[in-house]
Amino acid sequence: MGQGPVRTGVTAVFPRGKSNHDPVYAGWFSLNGNGEMTGMAWLEESGFLHGPILITNTHSIGAVHEAVIAWQKMRFPKSQSWSLPVVGETWDGYLNDINGFHVKREHVFQALDSAGTGPIEEGNVGGGTGMICYEFKGGTGTSSRLVAGPDATFTLGVLVQANFGRRHQLLVAGVPVGKELTEDAPFTGDRDPYEEEGSIIAVVATDAPLLPVQLRRLAVRVALGIARTGSISGNSSGDMFLAFSTANPGAANPENGIARIEVISNDHIGALLSATVMATEEAVINALVAAEPMVGRDGHRVVALPHGRLREILRSYNRLNE
Amino acid sequence: MGQGPVRTGVTAVFPRGKSNHDPVYAGWFSLNGNGEMTGMAWLEESGFLHGPILITNTHSIGAVHEAVIAWQKMRFPKSQSWSLPVVGETWDGYLNDINGFHVKREHVFQALDSAGTGPIEEGNVGGGTGMICYEFKGGTGTSSRLVAGPDATFTLGVLVQANFGRRHQLLVAGVPVGKELTEDAPFTGDRDPYEEEGSIIAVVATDAPLLPVQLRRLAVRVALGIARTGSISGNSSGDMFLAFSTANPGAANPENGIARIEVISNDHIGALLSATVMATEEAVINALVAAEPMVGRDGHRVVALPHGRLREILRSYNRLNE
Amino acid sequence: MGQGPVRTGVTAVFPRGKSNHDPVYAGWFSLNGNGEMTGMAWLEESGFLHGPILITNTHSIGAVHEAVIAWQKMRFPKSQSWSLPVVGETWDGYLNDINGFHVKREHVFQALDSAGTGPIEEGNVGGGTGMICYEFKGGTGTSSRLVAGPDATFTLGVLVQANFGRRHQLLVAGVPVGKELTEDAPFTGDRDPYEEEGSIIAVVATDAPLLPVQLRRLAVRVALGIARTGSISGNSSGDMFLAFSTANPGAANPENGIARIEVISNDHIGALLSATVMATEEAVINALVAAEPMVGRDGHRVVALPHGRLREILRSYNRLNE
Amino acid sequence: MGQGPVRTGVTAVFPRGKSNHDPVYAGWFSLNGNGEMTGMAWLEESGFLHGPILITNTHSIGAVHEAVIAWQKMRFPKSQSWSLPVVGETWDGYLNDINGFHVKREHVFQALDSAGTGPIEEGNVGGGTGMICYEFKGGTGTSSRLVAGPDATFTLGVLVQANFGRRHQLLVAGVPVGKELTEDAPFTGDRDPYEEEGSIIAVVATDAPLLPVQLRRLAVRVALGIARTGSISGNSSGDMFLAFSTANPGAANPENGIARIEVISNDHIGALLSATVMATEEAVINALVAAEPMVGRDGHRVVALPHGRLREILRSYNRLNE
Repeated sequence: MGQGPVRTGVTAVFPRGKSNHDPVYAGWFSLNGNGEMTGMAWLEESGFLHGPILITNTHSIGAVHEAVIAWQKMRFPKSQSWSLPVVGETWDGYLNDINGFHVKREHVFQALDSAGTGPIEEGNVGGGTGMICYEFKGGTGTSSRLVAGPDATFTLGVLVQANFGRRHQLLVAGVPVGKELTEDAPFTGDRDPYEEEGSIIAVVATDAPLLPVQLRRLAVRVALGIARTGSISGNSSGDMFLAFSTANPGAANPENGIARIEVISNDHIGALLSATVMATEEAVINALVAAEPMVGRDGHRVVALPHGRLREILRSYNRLNE
Repeated sequence: MGQGPVRTGVTAVFPRGKSNHDPVYAGWFSLNGNGEMTGMAWLEESGFLHGPILITNTHSIGAVHEAVIAWQKMRFPKSQSWSLPVVGETWDGYLNDINGFHVKREHVFQALDSAGTGPIEEGNVGGGTGMICYEFKGGTGTSSRLVAGPDATFTLGVLVQANFGRRHQLLVAGVPVGKELTEDAPFTGDRDPYEEEGSIIAVVATDAPLLPVQLRRLAVRVALGIARTGSISGNSSGDMFLAFSTANPGAANPENGIARIEVISNDHIGALLSATVMATEEAVINALVAAEPMVGRDGHRVVALPHGRLREILRSYNRLNE
Repeated sequence: MGQGPVRTGVTAVFPRGKSNHDPVYAGWFSLNGNGEMTGMAWLEESGFLHGPILITNTHSIGAVHEAVIAWQKMRFPKSQSWSLPVVGETWDGYLNDINGFHVKREHVFQALDSAGTGPIEEGNVGGGTGMICYEFKGGTGTSSRLVAGPDATFTLGVLVQANFGRRHQLLVAGVPVGKELTEDAPFTGDRDPYEEEGSIIAVVATDAPLLPVQLRRLAVRVALGIARTGSISGNSSGDMFLAFSTANPGAANPENGIARIEVISNDHIGALLSATVMATEEAVINALVAAEPMVGRDGHRVVALPHGRLREILRSYNRLNE
Repeated sequence: MGQGPVRTGVTAVFPRGKSNHDPVYAGWFSLNGNGEMTGMAWLEESGFLHGPILITNTHSIGAVHEAVIAWQKMRFPKSQSWSLPVVGETWDGYLNDINGFHVKREHVFQALDSAGTGPIEEGNVGGGTGMICYEFKGGTGTSSRLVAGPDATFTLGVLVQANFGRRHQLLVAGVPVGKELTEDAPFTGDRDPYEEEGSIIAVVATDAPLLPVQLRRLAVRVALGIARTGSISGNSSGDMFLAFSTANPGAANPENGIARIEVISNDHIGALLSATVMATEEAVINALVAAEPMVGRDGHRVVALPHGRLREILRSYNRLNE
């Protein structure tokens, strides 16, 4: 303990970029609350997400929480006098020396300072470094959809950090892949078949103009996407999902106290609900496909989802798009 | 049973008047759920209240629920194909022959057809007819406040149907009136001092432009207003509060699927929160002051709050504004 | 309207049989609240389900609600002085003359009086009579699992009334059956591909000793089971799930005010969570398989899932267990 | 910043003492979520509070969160592999150099190691050091009640850390004390009369055997107690309340997976609900009465509630018990 190996990290998501502190409308849902996502009380009460979203390991929440406040004070000294950071987590202690508290203030600053636009790295990166998903190496996965709205085309993206599930449960495109790929499953044999130590954090981002009450509805649909990959959301899983909309800049702090905003009517959000389900399913599979095998503490070793075998199995079920 | 006496009724509240079906943004809160308010699942999910609010006795919910749908179909045959009416209740069975099911379709139609604007009758009227509050005769009470907003002055009104509380708990303007007025308390002596059979339904209406997430915050403040009259919200009380805003007409069904609306920022809702607390406290006291004594089934008799004694007691505590 | 055809009914579920009014611990979850399930405020507050569960069409909630109270008073005159019935619904107005209010008190009494033990009829029965699921004829479906608990084997059963989903979404055993069976889909073509008018009500019953907080966790897992059949839980769907445990008789009204009860620890509920997901998935498919085609109002016609074609498709995806 | 003055601290509450890690049943309620209480997702999901409750200033949540985990690992190396600490906060930045991050690991260890039984110090101690309540010096307050239960007498205690409210709102025993004591109100004049920067954290502890669903009901009643002191729970207040029961040791981890527990029936919890309201009201006033005046950063000075003047005002309203 304290010596490593270090198999962890920090992921930072800025809804509007790292220099724009304009809050975004947001909603959240906890499918199974064996985890932590700080800042949710104020998000739920106010309807807004007020800063970046950070994801790290369970025992580094504290370090990250304090570092976010310090970073805000250092980089933006005139920002408001209090902060309630949003920090989510998953438990990576099978591979990582989680009780060594290896995440320090400088790592958080680095994650915050280096956040940028463009494609997101997937697999063993950031908070997803030491994750395990369906007893394969897990981590960060993303997916997005374009959705035809009433007036315009909207974009909806999902980022997951996938650290949940037991091998026998895994479905890919509805195919019971996990029942065929039984080798190298680190927990199978030792544990109750439903016992988990993991979690999944998901962030849904869209430019569609949605209210907090509607964004919660998107967050709820993340659960349906995860179900399509086989999860039953075990007792020990911390499955928490946050959705925000970058539409309506200035809604939180309008000059004269009254904001003028746009909102899609509920009758028109079906395609956004569906996109959330589908992008979540894909993001989980993408995390599995992108992750590389890893050896961690005490010689613990987690293999990656074998691409060739996966293709074979999908083919045998007539589900490979060739 | 079935013979009466009938000490019950129906109250109808139309957010925008009885011919205007445009939904209003709404939120709700259940302080203690030993009661019923139908329609809350869709209100919470959609953020809108889609029709009138009806209040009646506990065992007439069904009759009122069906009658609202029938009325909508009869008066507005082109309205949407389904309806999820909002019907709240309190138990008036100490005075009323509640198991006689005396509320019939025609009574509901009458309540709906006769709804109008202007001052609201208080005391033993409508759903409040057979109510008991702090072991005095209870019923309907209202109160309102003007609130200076960023841009304009807003109006906020509270309607309660007050059917809760035990005598020893009653506070008026903070004065322990209930401990002095111990006579003619129908349940004192027989029952556990915290046992209740009642409920309180409250409706908060405002023209301030608020989102569903903010309207729920107003509904929560009703609890604080009731607390100022002494209630501890007993196990058997159904204490449910609904808040809506008449601002933003057309928000639910905008022509092209995107509504343009106005919203007060959270930093500017303090006065509305305070107004909700204060108007609720006053509405409960107004219900007590307006109600007339009543004799009901099996000779049950409930006295009214004695105005003269109340004044005396307030004077003795230096709280009478003379 | 008022002339029929009548394609509706009433389903009654008594947790402990129709003469045993001992409440059961219960929890619930609303996946998408475009529907109604009365009685949930008190269920959530008290942790108990106090009477039978009734399911009918959306516009007959009122008739059923009143009839349940009348039945309780008639059959059990000494029962408690108030009742807050649990009545769920789905909209069957495509086939049924829903605005004709054809459910009368006698139909509810019949459903209550005829409730028995043993296998449950599936398909076009009771509240499920006029249902449509994935644009096939839907209705009532059930499924159950035996679950090895710490001390004993528990039984967990799921009853659904399935009236939701669009054809293109349907998955059976993970196979995209709905994309292959495109014929005779009544809404496809006319409507937005995510627009629904339906709902799904699910009841999870178990003899495992669970607390309200744990039963809510089971109710949440119903959502995951439904997701495995393809649903995205559309905006217009009322997807509400209730779970109860028949363990711990007498918990609600112990003689001296203190109940002695048993509870499974959270570490041991994984198999129950999984059983809920799996039984829900199967119950939905069973509803589809059991339902018969139906012609309803205005010549509306809904076909049944074609068993032969289904087998063929499953075989072509190597998913038919022959 | 970083130089102080330091006007902050850490409070630790161990439900069963610092060497007994047996979880307790718990529930919580957020009256207004402009604050943080970590660990609530798992408390709500599991029904248990798994460790100590810590309270500190808003910007020291991170330091305390990490320190709790480190302390658990150091003092109890065989404890479980993950921890989700419960850390609440209030903002003390008017008096305290909150951005100096003065709470260090050793302070948390000291709070944890020195926790004991017996009377609790009130006023400017621990997390309550730099608090302001109704524009008087606030801090820690406690109160308790003995409650006659069905079988035995139960104890119920409330601890608050009171850092909320505006002067004009203060009620003591229902008397509008705040409207008479207008001097030395640090925010009056400068700010909107409803603008707050504070919060109130409350912990309700009892030995009555209650389930999580019932403990949440107690937590909700804290709101009613606070209302009796005048608060309207302003937009910027983080008002979060947690209730736990020390009854039923061993319920979380029974040897064979099935716990045998006791539970009070809902019909018998009225006196506990009332005791929560009354003890909360008293605990807030006790915090005000116990707190000493303080000078903090930038010469900010907050006076204490003047005992003599308070007595005079209460006497003038015939509310002083002499």
